[in-house]
Amino acid sequence: MSRRVTRRRLLGTAAGAAAGGAFAGGLVVGKEASPDDTPLVERVVPFYGPVQAGIATPAQDRLHFAAFDVTTDRLSDVRDLMRAWTGAAARMTSGLEAGPHAASELAPPVDTGEATGLPAANLTVTFGFGPSLFARDRFGFEASRPAELRELPGLPGDELDPDRSGGDICVQACSDDPQVAFHAVRNLARIGRGSVVMRWSQLGFGRTSTTSRSQSTPRNLMGFKDGTKNIRAEDVELMRRHVWVDTPGWMRGGTYMVTRRIRMLIEVWDRASLKDQEDTIGRLKESGAPIGGRNEMDPVNAAKLPVDAHVRLAEPAANGGERILRRGYSFTDGMDADLGQLDAGLFFICFQRDPEKQFVAIQRRLGGMDALNEYIKHTGSAVFAVPPGVRRGGYVGEGLLTRA
Amino acid sequence: MSRRVTRRRLLGTAAGAAAGGAFAGGLVVGKEASPDDTPLVERVVPFYGPVQAGIATPAQDRLHFAAFDVTTDRLSDVRDLMRAWTGAAARMTSGLEAGPHAASELAPPVDTGEATGLPAANLTVTFGFGPSLFARDRFGFEASRPAELRELPGLPGDELDPDRSGGDICVQACSDDPQVAFHAVRNLARIGRGSVVMRWSQLGFGRTSTTSRSQSTPRNLMGFKDGTKNIRAEDVELMRRHVWVDTPGWMRGGTYMVTRRIRMLIEVWDRASLKDQEDTIGRLKESGAPIGGRNEMDPVNAAKLPVDAHVRLAEPAANGGERILRRGYSFTDGMDADLGQLDAGLFFICFQRDPEKQFVAIQRRLGGMDALNEYIKHTGSAVFAVPPGVRRGGYVGEGLLTRA
Repeated sequence: MSRRVTRRRLLGTAAGAAAGGAFAGGLVVGKEASPDDTPLVERVVPFYGPVQAGIATPAQDRLHFAAFDVTTDRLSDVRDLMRAWTGAAARMTSGLEAGPHAASELAPPVDTGEATGLPAANLTVTFGFGPSLFARDRFGFEASRPAELRELPGLPGDELDPDRSGGDICVQACSDDPQVAFHAVRNLARIGRGSVVMRWSQLGFGRTSTTSRSQSTPRNLMGFKDGTKNIRAEDVELMRRHVWVDTPGWMRGGTYMVTRRIRMLIEVWDRASLKDQEDTIGRLKESGAPIGGRNEMDPVNAAKLPVDAHVRLAEPAANGGERILRRGYSFTDGMDADLGQLDAGLFFICFQRDPEKQFVAIQRRLGGMDALNEYIKHTGSAVFAVPPGVRRGGYVGEGLLTRA
Repeated sequence: MSRRVTRRRLLGTAAGAAAGGAFAGGLVVGKEASPDDTPLVERVVPFYGPVQAGIATPAQDRLHFAAFDVTTDRLSDVRDLMRAWTGAAARMTSGLEAGPHAASELAPPVDTGEATGLPAANLTVTFGFGPSLFARDRFGFEASRPAELRELPGLPGDELDPDRSGGDICVQACSDDPQVAFHAVRNLARIGRGSVVMRWSQLGFGRTSTTSRSQSTPRNLMGFKDGTKNIRAEDVELMRRHVWVDTPGWMRGGTYMVTRRIRMLIEVWDRASLKDQEDTIGRLKESGAPIGGRNEMDPVNAAKLPVDAHVRLAEPAANGGERILRRGYSFTDGMDADLGQLDAGLFFICFQRDPEKQFVAIQRRLGGMDALNEYIKHTGSAVFAVPPGVRRGGYVGEGLLTRA
């Protein structure tokens, strides 16, 4: 059977799933939308649906993430912004330009043009709201702030750069084509001019080489397979338990996103012996098998691992059963001028129902004991409430913005 | 007829071309090696040959460029470095790890591992030597310095950052997979530790979406098609006339590379009207046709263009017939903190027989008059002598390094 999915079939499936009313609907569609052998031109992830795309959607190859600060103090401007951003995102994710052509060549083009003629390549655009947007005396959102949304506490090993942290609104653009992801962020920034300024941005690359069958789990820049034990988006029950908010209110169908820019000290790492590296992670480098196991998917046997091995400490069993949905991208931002070393690592994104109980609890444990700490430092951090998806005619964040 | 090329067939063709003795041999092979519909796993560009790969090779999708300063003062260390780099580059470009596995797990791994299991994806690694390597009292190369290799003069519009300019030795790694390109630069940096330190590096992305038939000429971040009039690598006569060095000496079969980091002031650009943008470039944005023409490939009719239009000033006819082989990549390096704007643009690489007569002459003309100057600034600059290719058993730069 052909795994090709036409745009019409995709939209049909999405509508069906939405009618079914379950959050899980969008996920399955996302998964089916991007088999490795689908030609890029046909890879379109539906924008509309009960949940935002880009969460359960299987990770595309490239990331362009941007955090913005809101500069207007008028609520109506924020509503207009989210309406305009929603419309542009819906167009761009379906492979169109950001807006219809301007009537006159004497006006600036409505789209910047660098993605003209390129397919969407699974582009998703995901929006989130930071705690600072809910601050007192801003837009009247104080009473709407969910208890789960607050600034992350200081965590062991933090070396955070304020210029790479925080933000009022985030945009996560993922695509299999870096030019398409860049184009999305750039055009949203342009549309937002006057209401928002970009605070920081981050590029990332992830799983690569769609014809490589041998690397189903991608390797991070430490050379280890990363994500073996991640929640699988098609596991509806785990997604429901750990990721999607189901309490009544404007966040129902949403989730909370944590981002951490994790710099790897790769020169130090590269000098460590293979045994030290494997003891640090708790897995064998080549196969990805846990120490004491033979295959990548073998269960982790804590008794066989050093007490400070990363996978031992990160195991759900060691964390009261808490899990998170990870969506990590490798990054390299050129040189660190101070150290004369490559500035590279993992831009870690995770989704969960409650950051304090999930990411923070796990990171407290890891940050205190993890053998990996010798080789990494967290240089950026942010948290966002990711509202539910939208129906045609609606806009992202409508539940919050019409309430205040 | 299938356009698939097996590794064995490739090597056979390369050997045949080398035996033919023409520099052009490597080019045609490079071209044939990467049709868009060849599975990634089969895309291997031969490393050995009369000229280095990565010059006439059709541009791969991703760039990782690094410039190194030599920290040793022993000539034998530089020879050892180029021997080791050549060996590792030959392995990695054929899809292997940087070196054979270490005998003991108590030693650091010989390869950092993040590309294990990934195909080469057309990886090329191209080396060049900067003028500073030939300075008096360093390695005794003064007498071997070709007259064509000297620091570029100051040019109109330069706003160069010394931390993004110059360097003793450059490594240009190009691949269709960013993780593979990163892996190459990282492992070469690791191998060079003790002899070189990285001075600067630059990531780039270029043509994308291998299934997009509608965009044969890629668009730059100004949204315009870029490279319409570039020399085509299969045009042996133009390559001979403008690119390859054929005078006797260690540079025969080599070329000179100029790199310029051209920052685009995209926020300013995005506010310009479509007409202003088209008048600035001298082409129509959507079709790429020259103003006054109908199709992208139509000849530029200078009389129809504004006198300061970019393509009018860059035309060979306006520059005494001088041409260069361009290999540009778009870049985006996150935010410019001072301006609160995206730091993005074009990392411009060009190859030529004589930088002073070709790049410098053209840039003097452009820098003085080009309407585009309002929207760009050159923030990095370097020049390198790119030695000829090597045979199996040899190493890059051997002609220079065994002579001194």
